[in-house]
Amino acid sequence: MASILKDFSRLCLHTMTTRPWGIETCILNYHAAGIHGITLWRNVLENKNLSRVRTLLDDHGMHVVSLCRGGFFPSTDAAKRQKALDDNYVAIEQAVAVGAPLIVLVCGSEKDQSLEKSREQILEGIVRLYPLAEKAGVKLAIEPLHPMYAGDRSAVNTIRQANAMAETIHAGSVGVALDVYHVWWDPDLESEIKRCAAQGHLFAFHVCDWKVPTTDFLNDRGLMGEGCINIPLIREWVESNGFNGFIEVEIFSEAYWAEDQHRYVEKIKDAYLTKT
Amino acid sequence: MASILKDFSRLCLHTMTTRPWGIETCILNYHAAGIHGITLWRNVLENKNLSRVRTLLDDHGMHVVSLCRGGFFPSTDAAKRQKALDDNYVAIEQAVAVGAPLIVLVCGSEKDQSLEKSREQILEGIVRLYPLAEKAGVKLAIEPLHPMYAGDRSAVNTIRQANAMAETIHAGSVGVALDVYHVWWDPDLESEIKRCAAQGHLFAFHVCDWKVPTTDFLNDRGLMGEGCINIPLIREWVESNGFNGFIEVEIFSEAYWAEDQHRYVEKIKDAYLTKT
Repeated sequence: MASILKDFSRLCLHTMTTRPWGIETCILNYHAAGIHGITLWRNVLENKNLSRVRTLLDDHGMHVVSLCRGGFFPSTDAAKRQKALDDNYVAIEQAVAVGAPLIVLVCGSEKDQSLEKSREQILEGIVRLYPLAEKAGVKLAIEPLHPMYAGDRSAVNTIRQANAMAETIHAGSVGVALDVYHVWWDPDLESEIKRCAAQGHLFAFHVCDWKVPTTDFLNDRGLMGEGCINIPLIREWVESNGFNGFIEVEIFSEAYWAEDQHRYVEKIKDAYLTKT
Repeated sequence: MASILKDFSRLCLHTMTTRPWGIETCILNYHAAGIHGITLWRNVLENKNLSRVRTLLDDHGMHVVSLCRGGFFPSTDAAKRQKALDDNYVAIEQAVAVGAPLIVLVCGSEKDQSLEKSREQILEGIVRLYPLAEKAGVKLAIEPLHPMYAGDRSAVNTIRQANAMAETIHAGSVGVALDVYHVWWDPDLESEIKRCAAQGHLFAFHVCDWKVPTTDFLNDRGLMGEGCINIPLIREWVESNGFNGFIEVEIFSEAYWAEDQHRYVEKIKDAYLTKT
């Protein structure tokens, strides 16, 4: 059995989970709710003075878990691939500025070429990126995305593929971000978690739930316990293989974004203690 | 390279592809369009005299490729599992009545139990079903469904799982139905097609396309060439491993169902010759 979660010391919220809130509001309200893990989505950093953001984070004892997101490497156009890489360099600078030790990579996919070609370009992109990330003291996590995103968001669709890619790159700074939403269906999940952790590649653990039915490809994720994912079991696999980092709640949901976000954060806290 | 498709001798339409048409209309219009492969969905057989349907099929030289669909085995309730099995027995009777040599199994998934449990129940269901199917001269094809259906429609989500299940059952009457829509993203697709064919388990081949973006989980499939699936490459893999059966066009699309179905059939024929 997974460890019992008795407090919120390992709880992290993604700013995208409470999308209506800007960065300052997130920091103040998460802090007030007793939550001190935060993953910053880059949209909330746009046009912000990052040193002030960092001060606000520090002043409220916030622990920045990661920056979301880098990636989107593939394109049929070399200039666009370079542009994507340049944007990843910017992400590294932002991560340094706000004190994020990790960047999550949504690797991208190009519908006008084969998945194999996209995967080659992803590998090439990460190989070019990680030395700079290492120099900056920032790690990179390849996030396998659900196969329903293979056409547009990521050609890396299983933890096995992410593991293989991290092993190929073989750098201490490149690992895997595991989101239950993307991988819960995978018959090889348990063994691939073991493999990932054994290589020291399990960098992040994201939770939410898969609603039945799900009505939107992007923004109909469920709160833990609302869907069919056995989150405690996956958490047990993760923890029994040595992971004891933050449990990051990443929920995209038009329905929840329309609610009062304070009440929503309380629901998340309850689901975190009882359904995660 | 895949063989060149020069005529419609291997083209099969699923009645669901032209959903507005009833069974008689499908038969008359497919025949008039020079298409003689047909896969019957059970909804078009409701309240029909099946011997009359068979006569109409025979009179128009229609080749019944398969009956869609059996399956939906898992449930937390034993009585419901028995009911599902009984419905599969009815499907066998219907297949015999209309001369369908194959039933496609959409295996089912039960959100209130683990995928492993659902898979056990699927295996148990097929093991109970196939002796009757064999006696009736009907084959059964396990269709792996896209992982986005793991919560409600099938706990069998990769061709590897379908292959393993067919190999475990090890009966000449149980194989696999491969639909490019469900499996195109799979990095193991080529090797698992080879394995499937080597075991004599490749019973059916379904085509359509994955649109980018896709906006509905069920009814937004694309016509061949409209999406990002490399259908000719997958057909090459299938054919180079010995498959030379019907190429079944199975498209669920509210957009196409709203069009004039005669014109739509002509579009399908064009896409079949040029994009499949």
